[in-house]
Amino acid sequence: MDLKKYIRDVPDFPKKGIIFKDITPLLQDSGAFQYSLQAMTSPWKGIKIDSVLAIESRGFIFGGAMAAQNDWKFIPLRKEGKLPYHKLSESYSLEYGTNTVEIHKDALQKGENVLIVDDLLATGGTIKAGINLVEKLEANVAGIVALIELTFLEGKKQFQGYEFCSILKY
Amino acid sequence: MDLKKYIRDVPDFPKKGIIFKDITPLLQDSGAFQYSLQAMTSPWKGIKIDSVLAIESRGFIFGGAMAAQNDWKFIPLRKEGKLPYHKLSESYSLEYGTNTVEIHKDALQKGENVLIVDDLLATGGTIKAGINLVEKLEANVAGIVALIELTFLEGKKQFQGYEFCSILKY
Repeated sequence: MDLKKYIRDVPDFPKKGIIFKDITPLLQDSGAFQYSLQAMTSPWKGIKIDSVLAIESRGFIFGGAMAAQNDWKFIPLRKEGKLPYHKLSESYSLEYGTNTVEIHKDALQKGENVLIVDDLLATGGTIKAGINLVEKLEANVAGIVALIELTFLEGKKQFQGYEFCSILKY
Repeated sequence: MDLKKYIRDVPDFPKKGIIFKDITPLLQDSGAFQYSLQAMTSPWKGIKIDSVLAIESRGFIFGGAMAAQNDWKFIPLRKEGKLPYHKLSESYSLEYGTNTVEIHKDALQKGENVLIVDDLLATGGTIKAGINLVEKLEANVAGIVALIELTFLEGKKQFQGYEFCSILKY
């Protein structure tokens, strides 16, 4: 299945000069959504995964579905101020300013094998922050998967040495 | 399964005097997550559902999983400014100020049967806005489901006459 047919380019969103990759046409085609989930899951067959760390908020759509389909635990990586309980924070630089993501301190057991899931890899800052938080909790990043990779941004340089897979490359 | 065991009360979050219902212990137990999905899906057996309208962002976790498990389309109802393409907006009142949610204009076909999914029903403003948007697109609200209902807030009064189901009542 040619999944790229279901990704819509929206020019000048969220700001002028950026071409946004809109995944909503893919999500609203149940066959394309299923195919995407399968493609994002199959690289990890034979690897022990205990939990999905899904990145807010589009990562929740894929992560929730993959957790349900594979009987994995679901752990949210959330934007600052959203998680209610004891948590760890990690900040990373953006073009202007910084961004912060958070995880509950009791989200992962020591040694647990975690698959990090997001819809899109751009500069990789959020995923790298997720890796740092998983490792601060002494769990293990078994892999990282994104539906879309903007290869020209070279985000995966941020996590060399980790197993990473993307399905659609631009 | 007693799902309430997996819901954590967090006092004074997001502000003093509010007891927050934290669903992360449920999500990080794959059995409890599966059981919740089953409970949220089973009331709609025998009703034709074409798509899930999932409410950002915790609704994405359940909605994504339910769409994948049942071969339904996934439609996101997002906070203002997040959707990139042509869209409809709907605002509703909060205790102080208003909130706005949005849907893509091409998200639903005329006459399509939509199940609205969220993790929690409080005052019902977001769900009511979702109903209005579905109907503006001339689609049909086949049902509404939330994992948790805060019954003392009487949110379901906002959508009398619609099929509504919640799993855990407080």
